[in-house]
Amino acid sequence: MAYRETEKMRQRKAQTRQRILDCARQRVFEGGFGNAQVTRIAQLASVATGTIYRHFDSKEELFAEIFRDATEREVNKVSEDLASHGDAVSRLGKALRRFAERALDAPVMAWALIAEPVDPRVEAQRLIYRRAYAELFQRTIEEGIEEGSLPPQDAHFSSTCLVGAISESLVGPLSPTQAGDGDIVEPEHTDPLVDTIVRFCLQGLTGNRR
Amino acid sequence: MAYRETEKMRQRKAQTRQRILDCARQRVFEGGFGNAQVTRIAQLASVATGTIYRHFDSKEELFAEIFRDATEREVNKVSEDLASHGDAVSRLGKALRRFAERALDAPVMAWALIAEPVDPRVEAQRLIYRRAYAELFQRTIEEGIEEGSLPPQDAHFSSTCLVGAISESLVGPLSPTQAGDGDIVEPEHTDPLVDTIVRFCLQGLTGNRR
Repeated sequence: MAYRETEKMRQRKAQTRQRILDCARQRVFEGGFGNAQVTRIAQLASVATGTIYRHFDSKEELFAEIFRDATEREVNKVSEDLASHGDAVSRLGKALRRFAERALDAPVMAWALIAEPVDPRVEAQRLIYRRAYAELFQRTIEEGIEEGSLPPQDAHFSSTCLVGAISESLVGPLSPTQAGDGDIVEPEHTDPLVDTIVRFCLQGLTGNRR
Repeated sequence: MAYRETEKMRQRKAQTRQRILDCARQRVFEGGFGNAQVTRIAQLASVATGTIYRHFDSKEELFAEIFRDATEREVNKVSEDLASHGDAVSRLGKALRRFAERALDAPVMAWALIAEPVDPRVEAQRLIYRRAYAELFQRTIEEGIEEGSLPPQDAHFSSTCLVGAISESLVGPLSPTQAGDGDIVEPEHTDPLVDTIVRFCLQGLTGNRR
């Protein structure tokens, strides 16, 4: 019986931890990390503020986990798009386009992940994930050079140019201070911003007018 | 006499403030913002730690001022290069190349300005200056479209692609964790990294193989 009791406690602990994460993620989704006050998260998760600190060493630890989870999901989607059919150029175009469209579809969350000024501990996670994106792009660029759909180039540096171009050009449009209140970006709509980013990136890689 | 006394005090205060800024900047130059401990800066500036807080509200205020000063200087250099002779494409190429070369010439400082995980107050300054760079590039891209050296494009979004591509592709090479100890980048040396960045950016803008 003592064992079952412990197991139940373990489960309840895991559930509480998950509920805290879910509520915190919801707050970030709605207003960025700056919107995710611990007291408010505790309220939403129906726990005492102190309980949050029994599950996470600090607010920054909690934020870093939300950041990792959300970004990991994005990295996986980019990875899937890069593994789809077609030559390297069309796969890169697809991955870049869909990344930008997803970002514009959930602008506050994307802004929180890409550009919101955050604690250095979360910022450090950002650098790690930008490297993860760059590595994915680099592999596809190498495949493109190999198959001849891309001219010879330093695949590593070209990949970081891609990551920079797409994330930086999304920063402004995603920023809550720049977007109008209640602006809703239609996910189906081919945004001129997305076109510009994808064209710039593919031209940068191929040297051919798009 | 009382007036002169006050004037002298004012001057001495300004000198102390400047000395604190100079010593802090030197620490950032050598090891980034993470290297600039207030106690160490106070030691170097021969003042008590408390004196620093009489001149700056907080360490972050001091850092933000160093950041503004150093970045302002960079923005001015880019502005000068963009105002030099030649068509828009060659001026953009020159400004991008020299920006990258200056960064590789003072890698720790450049890393601190571009990518080091910092307090949100310094990070907020970063977003402002990235917009300043983008505005400079945008004006030159518009001139290029006007004169016909660049094809029609959304000059604003293309400019943010440039800022992103160049800053992101410098992040890795500048990072203290990636650079070898004592690596010195020769400023005269045409780095393959610089070539790749400039080629990617100009191809991105023009759609012509470089």
